[in-house]
Parts: sequence; C-alpha cells; structure tokens
Amino acid sequence: MALHGGDIYDLQKSQRDNIIDYSSNINPLGLSETFKAKVMENFHLLTRYPDIEYRELRDSLAHMNSVGRENILVGNGAVEVLFLYAKALNPKKALIVSPTFREYERALKNTDCQINYYKLEEEREFQLDADHLISQIRDEDLVVLCNPNNPTGKFISLQEIDKLSRFLEKKGAELFIDECFIEFIPEWKTLSSILLKRKNIFILRAFTKFFAIPGLRLGYGITFNSCLAEKISSSREPWSVNTFAELGGIWLPLDEDYIERSYLWIREEKKWFFQKLSQNKNIRVFSTETNFILLKLLHLTAEELREKMIRRGYLIRNASNFQFLNGRFVRLAIKDRENNIKLADILEEETALPSKNQI
Amino acid sequence: MALHGGDIYDLQKSQRDNIIDYSSNINPLGLSETFKAKVMENFHLLTRYPDIEYRELRDSLAHMNSVGRENILVGNGAVEVLFLYAKALNPKKALIVSPTFREYERALKNTDCQINYYKLEEEREFQLDADHLISQIRDEDLVVLCNPNNPTGKFISLQEIDKLSRFLEKKGAELFIDECFIEFIPEWKTLSSILLKRKNIFILRAFTKFFAIPGLRLGYGITFNSCLAEKISSSREPWSVNTFAELGGIWLPLDEDYIERSYLWIREEKKWFFQKLSQNKNIRVFSTETNFILLKLLHLTAEELREKMIRRGYLIRNASNFQFLNGRFVRLAIKDRENNIKLADILEEETALPSKNQI
Repeated sequence: MALHGGDIYDLQKSQRDNIIDYSSNINPLGLSETFKAKVMENFHLLTRYPDIEYRELRDSLAHMNSVGRENILVGNGAVEVLFLYAKALNPKKALIVSPTFREYERALKNTDCQINYYKLEEEREFQLDADHLISQIRDEDLVVLCNPNNPTGKFISLQEIDKLSRFLEKKGAELFIDECFIEFIPEWKTLSSILLKRKNIFILRAFTKFFAIPGLRLGYGITFNSCLAEKISSSREPWSVNTFAELGGIWLPLDEDYIERSYLWIREEKKWFFQKLSQNKNIRVFSTETNFILLKLLHLTAEELREKMIRRGYLIRNASNFQFLNGRFVRLAIKDRENNIKLADILEEETALPSKNQI
Repeated sequence: MALHGGDIYDLQKSQRDNIIDYSSNINPLGLSETFKAKVMENFHLLTRYPDIEYRELRDSLAHMNSVGRENILVGNGAVEVLFLYAKALNPKKALIVSPTFREYERALKNTDCQINYYKLEEEREFQLDADHLISQIRDEDLVVLCNPNNPTGKFISLQEIDKLSRFLEKKGAELFIDECFIEFIPEWKTLSSILLKRKNIFILRAFTKFFAIPGLRLGYGITFNSCLAEKISSSREPWSVNTFAELGGIWLPLDEDYIERSYLWIREEKKWFFQKLSQNKNIRVFSTETNFILLKLLHLTAEELREKMIRRGYLIRNASNFQFLNGRFVRLAIKDRENNIKLADILEEETALPSKNQI
C-alpha cells in the first residue's frame, strides 16, 4: 500500500530516529501539554469500555463547531468516517476532484462505486473553478473534494461551494468535502462549509494534523442529513474511538494557548517558506493556504530528490502517485523556521543543475 | 444499540464513578504498570503515523503465538477484525452457535449473509457436543463459535474443534473461532485452535479482557489462509490501530509478572466464586472455564435484579438479550476476592424469596 506519504517505516530504525520528516503534514508545535496531563490523570479509564454512543465527545465536537450532537459522527481517524460514509451513501458514480488524497478512491471502490476524475489544471495552479466543474458533471451522484486540497494546498471559497452544492442539490446529488486541513487557516470558522448547513454536504474532519496526533486516531464527520447519520450509526463497529482519542476530542479544543500559538506559526511561516522556496530557480512552487506546499522539480525527478534528501537527513513526499501528477512533483510539510531554513538551503543545493566544471 | 453489557454510561455520572462494574469481563488486576511506563516514555510517538503495515506489532503477536508475521492481522479491537473477516469471506449462510456474543450476527448481517442459529441446550449446561452440531449442519458455508463462550463460560476441547473443522473442510466450509477469553485459561497455549494450523479456521483474539484495556482497542486475527489474509489486508483502512495500542501489543506480552499474577488469581477465584455462588439456593450457577459466570434466577427477572443491584452499588449484566436466553439470566464478571465476597452476600439477600412475615 504505497499510497501514502510518511513511509518512514521503510527506513532503517536508526535512520528513522534521526530523520526530519517533511513528508507528513503535522503541526510542528508537537503535542499539547494539557492533553498529555489529561492522559496521565485519566490513565485508569482504559479499564473501561468507551461510551458506545460517545456522548461527551460528540458534545465537545458539536460545541466546537456550533452544531448539535446529532450532527456529529465520530471515527477511528477520519479514514473510518470516510469508509462509513461511502458505505452508507453507496453512490453509483462519483466524480473526484484531482489530484487529491487517494483514500477517497479506495473507500468508494470498496463499495463498488464507479469513479470519474475531474482534472485540476496545473496551468491554473490547480485552483478549482466551480463553474467549470459544474459544466463537467454528467450523471455522477457524488462529487468529492478536499478543502484545502491535499497535495495542492488550494482553498475553495464558501461562495463556490454554495454554488456547487446548490447545483448538486437540484440534481439530487451529494457533495463530500474533506476539511481535515482547514484548521490551519486561522479564520476557518468563517470559511467552513458547515456554515451552509446543507443536507447534501458531508464534511470530514480530523484531529490528526492540527493537533499533531496522527498516532491517536480521531476523526469526525458533520452532516445535516439525519437519515444518513442514522444509517452510518447503525452500521458502525462499536467502540471504534479509543479512550485517549476521546480525551483528546474533549480537551484539545480547550487548549487555547496551543491553538493560538499554532495560528501565529502558520500565519508567519506559510508566507516566509513560500517566499524562501520561490527564490530557488530550479523548482516551481505552488502557493498554499495550508500547512504543506507543492513543488515541481525542473531538473530531476521526485524520486531522485527524495533519495538525495534522505541522505541529507530529510524525508520528503514524492507526490507523483497522486492522480494527474507526473514524476516531478514533491510535497513538503511546513515546519518550524529553523528546520525550514535548513531544508530550503539543502534543497537549493540538491536541485541545482551541476555546473559545467562538475560535469 | 443495547446489544452490549457495561452500559455504565446510561447511569448518572456521579453514580458511574462509584459503582463496581460486574457487567464487563475485565481482569481485576487493573493496568500493567510496565505498560503505563512505556506509554509515558513513548508519548511523543503520537506525532507520527503508526507503521501502516504494523510490522513490529505483528512480529510481537506472531512470537507470542508461535506463528509467522504473515499469519497475523491486527485491528482496532477484535471487532474491527471480525467485521473485516466477515466482509472478506462474504459467506452465504452462517451457523452461529448460540447463545453467544451478538457482534458476529451484526458483522455477518452487514455483508448480507443469511444466519441460522445452533442452539446450545440449557439442560446440557450449554456445553457443545461437536457430533450433534455436525449432524445439524446443512448448506452453511461458515460456522461461528466463541471459545470459551460468552456468556456461558464453556470451553470446547481441541479434539472437538479438530473433528468439526475436518468435517467443514470436506464440505469446503469455514470455521470462525473467537478466542478473546482464552487467555483466562492458564494453559491456553496448549488448548488454542491455532495448534491445528488449518486453513479453514480463523481465530479472533483481543488484548481487551486479559490486560484490562477495553479503552485501548487492540484485537487481532490468526489465519493460515494466505489468500484470505491478503483479501483482508487490501480492504482494511490504514492506521486503524493507534500508537498506544501498538505499544500495548509489543510490551504487554512481555509483562510476565502481570501474566503470572493473573493466572494465580483466575485459578483461585474461579473455583472459589463458583462454590460461593452455588450455596445460593435461589439461583442456578453454570460452571465456567473463564473469568465470568452465568446465573439463572429462580424467583425474579434479570432486570429486577439488575435494578436492585445498582441501588446496592453493583452493575451486573442482564443476559436476557443473548439469543435463546430468557429474562432470567445474568452474567457476572469474576473480580477480586473482597468484591466477590460482598457481591455474593448482597446477591444472597436480593435473590431471596421474601419470607412470609415480610409479605
């Protein structure tokens, strides 16, 4: 299953412990200390089954998103929610706006859904134009998109989503929006598609990225379609969210200090890193709205660069297995300034054309 | 979803914190201190995705069971493995040996499998007779059983399983065996159906019960059918086992002190508790091979007793929603001596017929 970045486990253990991982898009602030303290304090809760209905957890997520408990579905990472959604909706034909995260495709194929791809154009910097997308929709009963999009970093406005979802509503079709990276836009609460409260929009979220806890496994879905919510609930496996993930969902949204520091970092660093990388004449850098950045290499392949970078102590994501991206695309996380400087400098060296003397 | 015991979350929070939970079959020794220390020490691993192939975890489980890594499939609790198995096998008609854990039925219905039930007879103390079961098998392509069985506590010998699985093999049918409670039999390594190494046997295991960590979510399957293993792997969601569960699977089997103390407790306490409860003339007690015990009430319903016991500070499992059990069955966990004495005494009072004077 080589669909994912962060294949850090393919490295030797000794290598793994010393490498800086730019392949996985995680908040570099690390773990919330408040959360760690809560885990210690409540360690004994492991001896109990979690609440099969996750009432306290869902209340916390509902509060964070200003919706009701009945609108929230929790899962073992966003991935479980995605698979449950695909199974419950059971669409005949889906249109996936691509390049994007490959798990949508896997989850849909799992339910025997036919899949079409809508291609985002490199010439337009992979920015989606809702009108053009609408003009391309035929008999699909589901449109899938990721916002901000992985790996392109592009964000689609609420107005565009509104237009698209209205069009789909008239056709009796659904819209799935993965917002797992939206919290890296500090104003996300005014930009999320939740605000539309439309029955044909399903929103996917995760705690993974923003709170730097991919090992904890906590994702959730937001829906205003009570029939769909009921269908998902009735098919889900019991206790799929572990006790510590439950604690995370309750306590992390309350860690305002962590959240504020993260906003400060992303505001500064996104701009700085983009400008820094843009000075490199051997790569094309795509602007981003979130915590990772897509590059196109002008003189070497992504795999060549990946191997060079591992030797320099950095793991980067070869993005060429995303649909429609060729072998020259690379995705980088945005980390702390110190590492970003080093990475950009090494990248400058490793992407440079060899001088004539060297040849 | 009222299929499960331990509905402790239906109680008020204040009540919940003070009640002794006999409804959930968990090792009363509590958490392994070694494991807690490992979680603290490795807390930072949460910032990484788990290994998508869980190589180290599967090696640990393979070692514990003297099989190869390729025979081990891990999941988010035994329940995920069960659902994946049902989906990958996709049987047409299953025979569930009942009364038993209700999730087999849910997992199979989820794949549109037709379900028949083989009834274990109360008159035979719910003990399975493999010859009789074999004589009742018609066109089922899957037989499901739990060993030791929840809620009856009965164990089926390796010889009987061997006979049954040979018969099924000739028919081209499969045998699913849930061994989630087998570690409470101190000699389990010489009794497990793994020893048969048959391709048509799938074995389910969990860390939940023996290591008292239902909140952690770690289960696994053992199979010698490489096609089935491959089919399950290719349909599973990535990273479904969280980092702490991974640590549990690696470190808990090494905590020999915890394991030895658990064996000591279960050897002593199972016998003692059975004898103690058997002195109560108002209940019928079924002998058990594991860490819980089934009772039949002679004078009141399970629900009546459950409510009385809550008022006395004890939560017990009303077992009447297990297939073929009527409203008079109750399941009790076996806990530490101090609590077991108290529970047995209160039970003596609460199950007694009111004396004529009181009426």
